[in-house]
Amino acid sequence: MIAEAMNRMGVAARRAAAALALTSPDQRNTALRSAATAIRTNADVILAANAADMRSGTDRGLGDAMLDRLMLDAGRVEGMAAGIEIVAGLHDPLGRVVAEWDRPNGLKIQRVTVPLGVIGIIYESRPNVTADAAALCLKSGNATILRGGSESFNSSNAVYTCLRDGLNAAGIDADAVQMVPTTDRSAVGYLLSSMGEWIDVLVPRGGKGLIKRVQDEARVPVIGHLEGICHVYLHEAADAEMARDIVLNAKMRRTGICGAAETILVDRSAAKRLLPGVAAALLDAGCEIRGDDTVTSIVPQALAANETDWATEYLDAIVSIRVVDNIDQAIAHISRYGSGHTESIVTGDVAAAEQFFRNVDSAIVLQNASTQFADGGEFGMGAEIGIATGRVHARGPVGADQLTSYKYVVRGNGQTRP
Amino acid sequence: MIAEAMNRMGVAARRAAAALALTSPDQRNTALRSAATAIRTNADVILAANAADMRSGTDRGLGDAMLDRLMLDAGRVEGMAAGIEIVAGLHDPLGRVVAEWDRPNGLKIQRVTVPLGVIGIIYESRPNVTADAAALCLKSGNATILRGGSESFNSSNAVYTCLRDGLNAAGIDADAVQMVPTTDRSAVGYLLSSMGEWIDVLVPRGGKGLIKRVQDEARVPVIGHLEGICHVYLHEAADAEMARDIVLNAKMRRTGICGAAETILVDRSAAKRLLPGVAAALLDAGCEIRGDDTVTSIVPQALAANETDWATEYLDAIVSIRVVDNIDQAIAHISRYGSGHTESIVTGDVAAAEQFFRNVDSAIVLQNASTQFADGGEFGMGAEIGIATGRVHARGPVGADQLTSYKYVVRGNGQTRP
Repeated sequence: MIAEAMNRMGVAARRAAAALALTSPDQRNTALRSAATAIRTNADVILAANAADMRSGTDRGLGDAMLDRLMLDAGRVEGMAAGIEIVAGLHDPLGRVVAEWDRPNGLKIQRVTVPLGVIGIIYESRPNVTADAAALCLKSGNATILRGGSESFNSSNAVYTCLRDGLNAAGIDADAVQMVPTTDRSAVGYLLSSMGEWIDVLVPRGGKGLIKRVQDEARVPVIGHLEGICHVYLHEAADAEMARDIVLNAKMRRTGICGAAETILVDRSAAKRLLPGVAAALLDAGCEIRGDDTVTSIVPQALAANETDWATEYLDAIVSIRVVDNIDQAIAHISRYGSGHTESIVTGDVAAAEQFFRNVDSAIVLQNASTQFADGGEFGMGAEIGIATGRVHARGPVGADQLTSYKYVVRGNGQTRP
Repeated sequence: MIAEAMNRMGVAARRAAAALALTSPDQRNTALRSAATAIRTNADVILAANAADMRSGTDRGLGDAMLDRLMLDAGRVEGMAAGIEIVAGLHDPLGRVVAEWDRPNGLKIQRVTVPLGVIGIIYESRPNVTADAAALCLKSGNATILRGGSESFNSSNAVYTCLRDGLNAAGIDADAVQMVPTTDRSAVGYLLSSMGEWIDVLVPRGGKGLIKRVQDEARVPVIGHLEGICHVYLHEAADAEMARDIVLNAKMRRTGICGAAETILVDRSAAKRLLPGVAAALLDAGCEIRGDDTVTSIVPQALAANETDWATEYLDAIVSIRVVDNIDQAIAHISRYGSGHTESIVTGDVAAAEQFFRNVDSAIVLQNASTQFADGGEFGMGAEIGIATGRVHARGPVGADQLTSYKYVVRGNGQTRP
């Protein structure tokens, strides 16, 4: 039963993707703007559906953090609509000639962007992923199969209905966006294992458990990241005030996002100069500090860090701090404990920054800026479907441009190959 | 036992990849040129190893085609060495700033190419894949784990020894290129299913059976193509002489390569004008023609095609020819029966060519040129590791540039995120 329903969705998605690839940018943007309008018009319906989800979530004993992610209010509904409109306003990612050259035999070769095809989105409690992810996929000409969490099933369906309204308004096959019509858990397994014929890429959005499962079980390429153990490294040539401001922002601006710093590394030669100010700012902001012996000797309020701390993504107001002998040791620490997401060096020394850029193998490496800039919006992409720490296809923030493939268009005048 | 040996290779590959990413282009090119020299110096050793493979292949009753792929002679050994030198002479694919922009807050963002990491190559009887594939991976800073066919085990190992000589000569960790040291078939299964921690991408090279197995079983991204059912479409505005020359070349230049045309489509309105010349050229060259009713009525020598013919990659001197009502039917035929590899339209009508380019969803679409140009060398890439028909990461010919990922390098002056 599940298999049959899922395969039917797959066939419909493939057909819709073929048609979607031939729509004009105006048509896709009309669909997006109409969906935003439908979300505003149907805000009451969405909020009522969400209230039902919240009631059953409370009955099922969901935790506060999950209930907060699940909860919609007028502001969040408006945020969804506004987010879709931002995506509609982005440049068209399709049909771009990203490279072109001529061959000595006269062939003119162009590499032109095209949609990836069909993208599967597997997510958890946040109903706004329905709107965000589908909008970016639609912008880039990709059909989507959405599989939201069972706890947000009613909310996501209400949003999904508005997306289909938008597609219909623009004369686009509404199967360009589909949602798995059941909360049956076996649907996820089927999506991961048996839809390779119809799904080109899977994007998981949610906690580590979900993402690890998708990465482990998926039989199609996955774009996503498991965790963000991000580092700020205070080099000996760091300005003290800048070091303090960047650490405070990287750790405490929002502690629950993947770009939040989890470990601070500081050069031994600068530890006494830099750590007191950094620690005071963190402690003032309510952050717990776990440090090595040198850190606890300089910062009396710091607890002792153990080996586990260096490998932990706290996603909380806790930071680990380690003193390193030099930049090589800092890079070695990041290589050993980091997750390849985002790392920042604070230094006035250009050569040190260049060494850090070259030798730290992460999706994003920064100098003199907060790790919390690891975000598609902050990168100027307008929106992102997530941050990829894999190395294949896309790395770092994944926006509409990264949800494309390409084809080669070759113009000749009768050439045959010798 | 196998698991332990494979995991050890994985760990060594990851370590070598980290070091390789920090080598200079000169160092990598020195390794390549030294490997080429080692191949020339050891030509006798390679030929002796190949003779042993050929003897046991003959004893095991391998077919002529496989024995031909397996066979090395002085010319083929020199070809391997020269191929490596061509790769050494290509532009450096690493450290290229492929995009850069500034943000209103002053952050300067660059997207810079880096190696993919560790690439697994699974291939069959052709020992020269050892040299070709490893050279392209090394050029692009990737470590490789090679798994050749058991029938070419001695030949591949002799070539592999030369590659390691080259790495040693350049002071690069020789584990940057490793070869699975056993013909045990379970090693392939382990490579496909259990090496995700150490292998970033798998590239299969060989027949359909191998590639289908890799695509079905691999737990890491795969770059490759299953088959090339390529089409030449003769539009009503095709020049007759050009149509004849392109069809003849696309089908018969080499029938066994993936870019060889398998089906010719021709507009009904132009069938009587174009088909006699096309058919005569094909028949003269020894090609069997299988056509629909209209074709057999125009070309008496043509056999009747059946449904299976449209979906068959002959890789032989056989071609299927179908008459279509118009360009829409041609595109629909390609969409239904094609493999997304390479298709060519022959026409003097620019609008028809543009429609074909837009609506045919294949890795390569050509106008007025032979499908046999589907080749990295012909595209000016210098060499290719294969042609990808997948849509993720790379599509079409995969050269050194396509074997890279990227990182974002962000330079600030103290920015924190609001």
